[in-house]
Amino acid sequence: MPHIFDIIRKDANARIGKLKTPHGIVETPTVMPVINPNIRIIDPSKMRKFGAEILIANSYIIYRNEKLASFALEKGLHELIGFDGPIMTDSGSFQLSVYGEVEINNIEVIKFQQEIGSDIGVPLDIPTPPFVSRSRAESELETTLNRLREAKDYTQKTDSDMLLSGPIQGSTYTDLRGKSAREVSDIGFDLYPIGAVVPLMESYRYKDLVNVIAASKNNLSKTAPVHLFGAGHPMIFALAVSLGVDLFDSAAYALYAKDGRYITTEGTHHLSNLNYLPCVCPICSSHTANEFKSAKNYKELLAQHNLFVTFAEIRHIKQAIRDGNLLELVELRCRAHPYLLDGLKEMYAHSSSMELFDPASKSTFFYCGPESANRPEILRFKKRMNRFTIEGSAIIRIKSSNEDEKYDNVLTFKPPFGSMPSELDEVYPFNAEVVKEHDYESINSALLNTLQLIQLNPNAKFTFVIEKKHLHHPLMEEIKKKAEVIEYISKF
Amino acid sequence: MPHIFDIIRKDANARIGKLKTPHGIVETPTVMPVINPNIRIIDPSKMRKFGAEILIANSYIIYRNEKLASFALEKGLHELIGFDGPIMTDSGSFQLSVYGEVEINNIEVIKFQQEIGSDIGVPLDIPTPPFVSRSRAESELETTLNRLREAKDYTQKTDSDMLLSGPIQGSTYTDLRGKSAREVSDIGFDLYPIGAVVPLMESYRYKDLVNVIAASKNNLSKTAPVHLFGAGHPMIFALAVSLGVDLFDSAAYALYAKDGRYITTEGTHHLSNLNYLPCVCPICSSHTANEFKSAKNYKELLAQHNLFVTFAEIRHIKQAIRDGNLLELVELRCRAHPYLLDGLKEMYAHSSSMELFDPASKSTFFYCGPESANRPEILRFKKRMNRFTIEGSAIIRIKSSNEDEKYDNVLTFKPPFGSMPSELDEVYPFNAEVVKEHDYESINSALLNTLQLIQLNPNAKFTFVIEKKHLHHPLMEEIKKKAEVIEYISKF
Repeated sequence: MPHIFDIIRKDANARIGKLKTPHGIVETPTVMPVINPNIRIIDPSKMRKFGAEILIANSYIIYRNEKLASFALEKGLHELIGFDGPIMTDSGSFQLSVYGEVEINNIEVIKFQQEIGSDIGVPLDIPTPPFVSRSRAESELETTLNRLREAKDYTQKTDSDMLLSGPIQGSTYTDLRGKSAREVSDIGFDLYPIGAVVPLMESYRYKDLVNVIAASKNNLSKTAPVHLFGAGHPMIFALAVSLGVDLFDSAAYALYAKDGRYITTEGTHHLSNLNYLPCVCPICSSHTANEFKSAKNYKELLAQHNLFVTFAEIRHIKQAIRDGNLLELVELRCRAHPYLLDGLKEMYAHSSSMELFDPASKSTFFYCGPESANRPEILRFKKRMNRFTIEGSAIIRIKSSNEDEKYDNVLTFKPPFGSMPSELDEVYPFNAEVVKEHDYESINSALLNTLQLIQLNPNAKFTFVIEKKHLHHPLMEEIKKKAEVIEYISKF
Repeated sequence: MPHIFDIIRKDANARIGKLKTPHGIVETPTVMPVINPNIRIIDPSKMRKFGAEILIANSYIIYRNEKLASFALEKGLHELIGFDGPIMTDSGSFQLSVYGEVEINNIEVIKFQQEIGSDIGVPLDIPTPPFVSRSRAESELETTLNRLREAKDYTQKTDSDMLLSGPIQGSTYTDLRGKSAREVSDIGFDLYPIGAVVPLMESYRYKDLVNVIAASKNNLSKTAPVHLFGAGHPMIFALAVSLGVDLFDSAAYALYAKDGRYITTEGTHHLSNLNYLPCVCPICSSHTANEFKSAKNYKELLAQHNLFVTFAEIRHIKQAIRDGNLLELVELRCRAHPYLLDGLKEMYAHSSSMELFDPASKSTFFYCGPESANRPEILRFKKRMNRFTIEGSAIIRIKSSNEDEKYDNVLTFKPPFGSMPSELDEVYPFNAEVVKEHDYESINSALLNTLQLIQLNPNAKFTFVIEKKHLHHPLMEEIKKKAEVIEYISKF
């Protein structure tokens, strides 16, 4: 495959990238607004002002409409849509999943996408829904893989410059998603969409969504661009980007507007229920809630609001990647719903794969809650603890005091990390900003890591000075066997 | 005092209110942009388009400038500022705190504010900084109280319709803040500013800020309008409003702009460090970061951005009060910095006073983290637990099963609440959305409340079905003494 994706910045598993398409370079992460050529709630030529760099349209909708199809075949997709930047096309897989059949086959749809001049085409894969039987997931995955091979073979024989997507399926079976990702990688595509996740998002099953994304990502090359097909609500962008998603597509901006739904990064309101507009976008800054609701073109205004919010979140995420504090943004966004918080916890259950990719030094670590105790930075600290060799007398304490000079080694106890040589106090990530009243999970992580450090250094004699309230923590039993434990009083 | 403040909606200690001033009614909570008549980075006549309903200016700055003073005395403050809505004036207390003296006395400044036609005047109180000696805080509070009495006596003899503020001082001594609030209430003012808190905000001492606000509020009438003097950064608005603050004032929008600082609800960026604009306001939606930075009028644009963000947060807070989910918004906002999280924990340490004011039924409770276990709703549940009388056999389980019918009573175990009759499953607040993987604090709260329920009903025979992972929680020892404990398996 030609080299089309450059990663220019990283944070967690997220990256800012440049995706090269026939109609120009797109900076990722980004969202592709879905354009329905039959219903143009916002003119595609105006999409750039919201921040769109690439659009997506459904080639099957065009194919099925004689007028649209002949226009597109004659003058091209870009002329039809009215946008001179990159346009991706979908294949009708969605219609297949809804209606059970489509009036086009795999090769026909690839050929049609090439002929109308799509920048990125998609084969006719089978979008297997979540929680189906394993046998169905397996057999549909085989069909999908066969069609992907067929599509790849076909495009290799043509001289089109259309990029080709290889969707990853496998329902909610993470091993099947993994297998799918490996096989799709072996075939080799330009872009890797993770498919059929919309039902997971609609039912707030973010934990399952995280596992599907992680299983796919862990079996793809780290340098492959990944698209989360059908994801268009900004409340999940930060979480998905931190797992390594580069592209989203949004029909939501328009579909939600049609239903009077008002998108925010914290969820969705019904416009009719708003007394105030809890947003700072150009629409919400220039209308009262009543003016907005009673505007004749309120659906158009709502679509504009939805798009403004969608692209501002992309900028917010990109700035957070630049600043190295994307995980702080994710932890914030995941407070919007308890099930998102379950998704966050699940993401950190994958910290070991994230730790390999996460930059070793970035902006100050902010403790945001018990979940922060499972961040990749904490895991990395734990893994590298054997690098500290401590011999002789050692004091572990919360902050410096006159007692320090009596010991050969001075260590700082800092939840959720644990204990580290005090020379590192101002070094990333130990210069973290943390709460003063620690959560149980944070203390637990720190005591566990302190115990490990003590065990790793049998030649040192440790004195551990700790606040009274933690003396009865279950882990203190073990620590007391290996170290002198002193209750913290002001002189320490 | 005339009745000038109506509370129309409540949530936690927050309220939406209507404040009646000589120049019209102001809906609270709101922010008063500070206007310096010498430096007009944004024309006051344009303040309404950002959402401002009331402005604030410093009467001492006007008094000290011969030209401004004579204009104001002749044509009035509103003509001078160029705004026909309500304008509050400050008295020079800030200058007193910075320079140690001012060239005006208490009565002179009150008289001047009346003469220029201020809507709300402030006496020349002493803004005692945080963490001074107790003797200084006490003696300065005496001076402040004497001046407030003097100001009140003076205004009662005049026929001005200017409203009068009675600032609350007392440094970080919560008993002195309480005393100050009680005495100021006894004297009787129209508006109650909590003074001298800026150093707490500048040093991120949000825990102390919460205690100062709570001590003041707990000693004021619930119906008194309260102003947090000098607070203008939107990152703390939600927290302060949920403690019962009605008015803020912001010089920050302009001062930050002068320094190139870009305000968000999560903190502050330096514009020069931004590669992307993480905001959806009209300025940030119509400029790239580079265009913004290189604009000749970037300071003016920045002040506009800062004001847009400031007033959008006010709308967001008002909508959350209407929706009854302000505490969810507070928990979200307090993730922006670990010290804000300490402030949040401290606020919930005051849940008992909040519980008295918080509406008994509102929108779905969302669990946002360990702090949620201390929300006033949980406290209220605990206090009212003696209303359930349980006799005979009783099963406490996570969800319904065929086993239920074997028991006289069926109860649901739901962290962080505890156990309640299953008829209440869909009733507020027990219809809460909670995480599936519970934090320690959430389980702890639920087990503690379950133990209390069991103890309150000695005539019932309890069977408690609980997941294996919680069987070894320290509280299970006590529970096992009073109830049959069964490990959760699928049939339950």
